[in-house]
Amino acid sequence: MRIAELSGRSGTSIPSIKYYLREGLLPGGNATGRNQADYDEAHVHRLRLIRALLDVGGLSVAAVRDVLAAVDTPGLPGHHLLGTAHHAISPPPPRRDPDDAGWQAARAEVEELIERRGWYVGPDSPGIDAAADAIAAMHALGQEDLLILDTYADAAERVAAEEVAAVVARGEPARMVQGVVIGTILGEAILCALRRLAQQNESAKRLPSVREA
Amino acid sequence: MRIAELSGRSGTSIPSIKYYLREGLLPGGNATGRNQADYDEAHVHRLRLIRALLDVGGLSVAAVRDVLAAVDTPGLPGHHLLGTAHHAISPPPPRRDPDDAGWQAARAEVEELIERRGWYVGPDSPGIDAAADAIAAMHALGQEDLLILDTYADAAERVAAEEVAAVVARGEPARMVQGVVIGTILGEAILCALRRLAQQNESAKRLPSVREA
Repeated sequence: MRIAELSGRSGTSIPSIKYYLREGLLPGGNATGRNQADYDEAHVHRLRLIRALLDVGGLSVAAVRDVLAAVDTPGLPGHHLLGTAHHAISPPPPRRDPDDAGWQAARAEVEELIERRGWYVGPDSPGIDAAADAIAAMHALGQEDLLILDTYADAAERVAAEEVAAVVARGEPARMVQGVVIGTILGEAILCALRRLAQQNESAKRLPSVREA
Repeated sequence: MRIAELSGRSGTSIPSIKYYLREGLLPGGNATGRNQADYDEAHVHRLRLIRALLDVGGLSVAAVRDVLAAVDTPGLPGHHLLGTAHHAISPPPPRRDPDDAGWQAARAEVEELIERRGWYVGPDSPGIDAAADAIAAMHALGQEDLLILDTYADAAERVAAEEVAAVVARGEPARMVQGVVIGTILGEAILCALRRLAQQNESAKRLPSVREA
């Protein structure tokens, strides 16, 4: 198909397609003339993936490039790929002070949680620091009653077990690789959106008391 | 206390404090001289809140201003406050086409889920559109097997019930208001970080099969 059809099929403007081609996110089509190329279904799918990562996942173009490079590396271990996807959706780390006693205590709290849960997680995992950042902030703000860590860990376990099971059930390596990336990034968007809806439901039932204040 | 002590106590540089004062995020101290002001514990707490929202919550300065304005409005209904917190942590909406049949179908899927769950949620809730964005992208990418919506909804319900219960248990309106904002924003950071750790654990147990590909 020509670029105009690719644009229509993928819901992406022609200037955006040309930008992704220049940035190396989208492989070029088959040249059919001096300024013309032919694209196929793989290009449609790739463009949809790029748009989902950018628009729904909220990734930067640089993060999308990293994720696609991982997807395109044949035989990359599933674990490494998960790390790439996690890295891409992690916000830049706050200007934390690793020597700060409060932050150290929060990190120890996460490590105890991992130990208690029996989670097999390396000590360098960025998720540990990310959780420690938020927990340290909760403590600094005196919000210990909101630190329902085991409730969050229960929810995380159930969700992760089903997510990984769905990916493993695919069997075909190329589709497993895509599933890790897409499931990690778009799944987070779905889980967070549903948490907000569930909070609204709970708060509609229980929070009107704040209104009377 | 003087600004130098405020800086040390809150872990915020003096130029940053001056910036937050200029931007109206931090109320001024008590003027004690031509170029000198006296700050108190409320300023320390406020600065920690600003830093947590910026650094851990990943909010923009404009979003922090909106959240703090809501916190500072006495008697604001709890429900409105939750909406402000949700709005602040929502990424800007993707360039979605609301007439797109795929997006409409995804939105209908979210509405059915809400109906099935009996959630009391208004039709204009931004969480509905945010969930629809990610679900539409999953369908466009042919990843229906990863759409474990009821698993996400179960997790969201449990988490939200405990979160709202912890806020309601506070009783004191000013602390409930802070709890809604902080719990919504930092709680999301904790839940997402723990989900990544739980995924790593599951993937370490079950995904090495991708390595052999």
